[in-house]
Amino acid sequence: MIKAGIIGATGYAGGELVRLLLGHKEVEIKWFGSRSYIDKKYYEVYQNMFQIVDAVCMDDNMEELADQVDVIFTATPQGLCASLIKEEILKKVKVIDLSADFRIKDVKVYEKWYGIEHKAPQYIEEAVYGLCEINREDIKKARIVANPGCYTTCSILTLYPLVKEGLIDTDTIIIDAKSGTSGAGRGAKVSNLFCEVNENMKAYGVTSHRHTPEIEEQLGYAGNCEITLNFTPHLVPMNRGILATAYAKLLKKADGSIPSYEEVKAAYDKYYQNEKFVRVLEKGICPETKWVEGSNYVDVNFVIDERTGRVIAMGALDNLVKGAAGQAVQNMNLVFGFKESEGLELVPMFP
Amino acid sequence: MIKAGIIGATGYAGGELVRLLLGHKEVEIKWFGSRSYIDKKYYEVYQNMFQIVDAVCMDDNMEELADQVDVIFTATPQGLCASLIKEEILKKVKVIDLSADFRIKDVKVYEKWYGIEHKAPQYIEEAVYGLCEINREDIKKARIVANPGCYTTCSILTLYPLVKEGLIDTDTIIIDAKSGTSGAGRGAKVSNLFCEVNENMKAYGVTSHRHTPEIEEQLGYAGNCEITLNFTPHLVPMNRGILATAYAKLLKKADGSIPSYEEVKAAYDKYYQNEKFVRVLEKGICPETKWVEGSNYVDVNFVIDERTGRVIAMGALDNLVKGAAGQAVQNMNLVFGFKESEGLELVPMFP
Amino acid sequence: MIKAGIIGATGYAGGELVRLLLGHKEVEIKWFGSRSYIDKKYYEVYQNMFQIVDAVCMDDNMEELADQVDVIFTATPQGLCASLIKEEILKKVKVIDLSADFRIKDVKVYEKWYGIEHKAPQYIEEAVYGLCEINREDIKKARIVANPGCYTTCSILTLYPLVKEGLIDTDTIIIDAKSGTSGAGRGAKVSNLFCEVNENMKAYGVTSHRHTPEIEEQLGYAGNCEITLNFTPHLVPMNRGILATAYAKLLKKADGSIPSYEEVKAAYDKYYQNEKFVRVLEKGICPETKWVEGSNYVDVNFVIDERTGRVIAMGALDNLVKGAAGQAVQNMNLVFGFKESEGLELVPMFP
Amino acid sequence: MIKAGIIGATGYAGGELVRLLLGHKEVEIKWFGSRSYIDKKYYEVYQNMFQIVDAVCMDDNMEELADQVDVIFTATPQGLCASLIKEEILKKVKVIDLSADFRIKDVKVYEKWYGIEHKAPQYIEEAVYGLCEINREDIKKARIVANPGCYTTCSILTLYPLVKEGLIDTDTIIIDAKSGTSGAGRGAKVSNLFCEVNENMKAYGVTSHRHTPEIEEQLGYAGNCEITLNFTPHLVPMNRGILATAYAKLLKKADGSIPSYEEVKAAYDKYYQNEKFVRVLEKGICPETKWVEGSNYVDVNFVIDERTGRVIAMGALDNLVKGAAGQAVQNMNLVFGFKESEGLELVPMFP
Repeated sequence: MIKAGIIGATGYAGGELVRLLLGHKEVEIKWFGSRSYIDKKYYEVYQNMFQIVDAVCMDDNMEELADQVDVIFTATPQGLCASLIKEEILKKVKVIDLSADFRIKDVKVYEKWYGIEHKAPQYIEEAVYGLCEINREDIKKARIVANPGCYTTCSILTLYPLVKEGLIDTDTIIIDAKSGTSGAGRGAKVSNLFCEVNENMKAYGVTSHRHTPEIEEQLGYAGNCEITLNFTPHLVPMNRGILATAYAKLLKKADGSIPSYEEVKAAYDKYYQNEKFVRVLEKGICPETKWVEGSNYVDVNFVIDERTGRVIAMGALDNLVKGAAGQAVQNMNLVFGFKESEGLELVPMFP
Repeated sequence: MIKAGIIGATGYAGGELVRLLLGHKEVEIKWFGSRSYIDKKYYEVYQNMFQIVDAVCMDDNMEELADQVDVIFTATPQGLCASLIKEEILKKVKVIDLSADFRIKDVKVYEKWYGIEHKAPQYIEEAVYGLCEINREDIKKARIVANPGCYTTCSILTLYPLVKEGLIDTDTIIIDAKSGTSGAGRGAKVSNLFCEVNENMKAYGVTSHRHTPEIEEQLGYAGNCEITLNFTPHLVPMNRGILATAYAKLLKKADGSIPSYEEVKAAYDKYYQNEKFVRVLEKGICPETKWVEGSNYVDVNFVIDERTGRVIAMGALDNLVKGAAGQAVQNMNLVFGFKESEGLELVPMFP
Repeated sequence: MIKAGIIGATGYAGGELVRLLLGHKEVEIKWFGSRSYIDKKYYEVYQNMFQIVDAVCMDDNMEELADQVDVIFTATPQGLCASLIKEEILKKVKVIDLSADFRIKDVKVYEKWYGIEHKAPQYIEEAVYGLCEINREDIKKARIVANPGCYTTCSILTLYPLVKEGLIDTDTIIIDAKSGTSGAGRGAKVSNLFCEVNENMKAYGVTSHRHTPEIEEQLGYAGNCEITLNFTPHLVPMNRGILATAYAKLLKKADGSIPSYEEVKAAYDKYYQNEKFVRVLEKGICPETKWVEGSNYVDVNFVIDERTGRVIAMGALDNLVKGAAGQAVQNMNLVFGFKESEGLELVPMFP
Repeated sequence: MIKAGIIGATGYAGGELVRLLLGHKEVEIKWFGSRSYIDKKYYEVYQNMFQIVDAVCMDDNMEELADQVDVIFTATPQGLCASLIKEEILKKVKVIDLSADFRIKDVKVYEKWYGIEHKAPQYIEEAVYGLCEINREDIKKARIVANPGCYTTCSILTLYPLVKEGLIDTDTIIIDAKSGTSGAGRGAKVSNLFCEVNENMKAYGVTSHRHTPEIEEQLGYAGNCEITLNFTPHLVPMNRGILATAYAKLLKKADGSIPSYEEVKAAYDKYYQNEKFVRVLEKGICPETKWVEGSNYVDVNFVIDERTGRVIAMGALDNLVKGAAGQAVQNMNLVFGFKESEGLELVPMFP
């Protein structure tokens, strides 16, 4: 039994982390950090936790926390984790950072896209990008895990086999992604009010969303090349779920033809057939966000368009689970040598 | 480890039963009955179950089923369970019926409200009404459990302490209930299409909803009197959740005053303080359906109106869990002597 | 052609007023008041108005405004209209106040329920309660129209014929109302975020909602008696629409029977058959909010419960139209002698 | 004052046509055709029309109808209009067909994508594709107007200036479109039930949606070349609205640079600055479906991505208005010489 502390426990990702850890056999939550609600009962912030969690919210004191727990989750805005982390903390605890602070290896890219100075660049190299299906072995040895973004997890897992196996022209990648509104966080903003989001749909952050360089970097590792792509997020009137629809030109084979369904399917199966949380759907079935809601699954599939020579690859996940808290728990399981799916064997809830 | 069969496994309540039983340590599902989808893979009907359930849908053969399993759940339209049940089945298996067939003791009342002939009236007396918090001991010994309706579970648990303790004038009870659309089932009807339900709200079955006599009968047992009340259901544009808002005149005490908050609270605590699944909220907090979504909890609370002398009691539950499949599992746990909360320790999902 | 000014043009009710007045042949909007957005283009606040409204938002200067326009609409928080109004303004313009400042005749009741001091009690007596179907003649002569609340319009019109004709026991009235979220306004609050409201339902303001005394006062005039009732509002995950479900005991006739459907229907027809905007639905049809969306209609109907002797009366309206801006325009039409339905002949939008 | 008949008046597009024509000064609806509801009052099918429309539903008798009206709208499934149309009808009335029967000039393409035989190929050449902003002059002279599809109207108007002005490489066009659920029609299907659509998002018809060849043909005329593109529709949990997000490589200019914002903006302005119903939004503002809801507007805008050399063009419309019934009315206005915006000056409804 290890002890966990959460900094940022009252955001939506933090709340989901609490939900998941409560069902985890090997972990006990010792610290519900929330600067906004210090000294308030946690269940007063999230009444679903009434009679389940009796703790009060604590400050973001990472040093004190490091003395009390074995793992710290930071579900906080960009910059906070980097500003608090230091060697004496890392000597005592593992850190799983749900923010973007340690996701991007090139600090200049981070500072350009996020518009803030990185306060702990010395740990960027060491931090492991926590996309479990891809970096499993490195994660096991990590002190700092950079938990991937929601859009990025969905986008990368959707495209990974195509890039890794060299099936597509990486200059032609376009990702059109759609997200439920919990991805926008729990801050009180007019643009996230029910009446502004409901019965509405829009793109946002067009050409400028911060998950773009993260996707490019990770897919670049897979393809062993530099990748520049278009990523367009959209806001959808639903609570949870991300759907990524990705487009790319299939590379022609020596005989001038494009890869067949079977060949592309084989690429997906090569990487995912032993992965519990990535489900390659059967031919003709498009992923739907509702089929993974509340669970750690990512459903992926693809369609080949003979007319245009493109592949349309699709992926769906729950942005708060596999896109945030679920993957964080999966990372923790890897770091501490628990069963990788412990606490995550949640059957998707439908409807 | 017992074996379970589900008749009606592809309705929403049946699907939820599958979800819950998959997380139950003592049960294995052996039979996914669905007359509409015979021979089809279950996951083709509910893609959330892809790579989780590999079984195919079977016919509604209760006799054959009785040879293979220890418990049969019937999540079917009214009349089906009564038409199939017989002594040789009951000698072999326990039956938990999620339909209304065995909920109402007076067969004439059943036949009047449901408009069908009861095919097995000889078992009505024996069947135990499966409202676990109230009939726990009888359920443990039952061969047939009549699993309560969704609205009824919510309505009864909301009002039970008030009636049982004689705090209200039972002639003045009015229950105004609101339900998410999964309560209407998965049948393809124009009135349940997305565009007809979304951005809409209506009452339906006004003065004639079939859960009315069930609520009246059960509250009548609590109050030891005959109760006639108004029950009005409404359709709400959400998937899950029932909210019951109940009104009644508080009976005056000897000194002419009405009971205080503390006195009424004591009545709720008397019956629910040791109940894991009924949460009496703190003063001033109104139940919200989202706080119990996906879980077996019922949240209840009340407000006293000094001006009118009425109490407004409120209850919220997830209609597919505590209102159907969750309570069915809870009943199964009681019948088989498992831990009552086994498979039901689900933390509500928010948002 | 008259000129209108709106104070509070960027709230939801203010925005709806703009939408409606743009389609009104006799009015031109000269002043888009919004203290929060001074000097900002109106369409930057509501992009639906792009290329339709070119004006910039102005301050709340009622005196200057009085020189420029013929009618001022105040769609502002409680207290603002009362704090600005004075004789020299009323000498120049008509005021239609969408806030509660002049709705309640007893200033003590206003101050108790609203918790603020009334700054212009001298005008309360003069102000006319702008429920057009009931106070039509007085409205025509008014300088100040107190535009009714959304819940109150719906509740009063639902119950009016029953109370006016003495068909019900007014001590037994219970109103259970459900509202879309636009009724909560456009303020940035966590509780109104999409993820908090969506897939959720709750009661709020139980026994304490400020529309209660307004309903009681107006129904009291109808019944020529003092009325104390229960009013419980609920928040529903939809943008627009209010549904009121009202309960009351029918008074027995001399022969001991309760009034028949035909007798109650006659009461509704007596008051509404010539009313364009109140539609008494056919027998057995329950009002649905979607059927009046975007329009000035109120749909009402009732069901008699022979078992309990109660009538269940139901009403549905669009809270931003008949519940706010539409009724304000209807009042303006009466005040200025325009055709009462001018600018309001909007066919409800479905779906 | 002309007379209109609607065949298919009880589908969602038919219902919207009724709503719009009721507000049109020059038209009277004489025939509410609906084979499914013959002899039923129209308002019994759409209760929003109670006390507004008193007519009963009629059969689909186009010949009889031709004797009674000046214009026939067919809002029916593919194939019906082609099966009924003939010279003696066209001699008497104008036909505005909201189905796909006369949209595609190459009958083989039609028959391949729609999978049905075309019953009146002799009229395909004559029929005018009713995209008003592009084919205005031809429409004025047409006997048969092929009213464009919802996705196609949105997609074409979003990309038209880019293709027409030769700014993009037409081999690189990808359209990722998202639609509210009313686009799926009012047929009772499980996949369109509230609980299946709500809190869910999916792509469908990937590489095979029937609007693809229509978009390709029309953009081909604009670009004077053959165009093959990817079009992927998605289902969104909202009633109304289509958002198209389109991607294409900008063609480099002689100096090797890509066109600037101002150059691309000039192309949009060239075609749309005098168009009432196409609003080119200001720089940095992304179209949102809610801003056009209930109206005939299409909002378009674009972003240039310097990194990838692509333009991301976006368009939003109300699928039932500009995407169906509104455009049909606009076409009628052109055909009969009415003011083009008559009956269509609807301000978008927000929220």
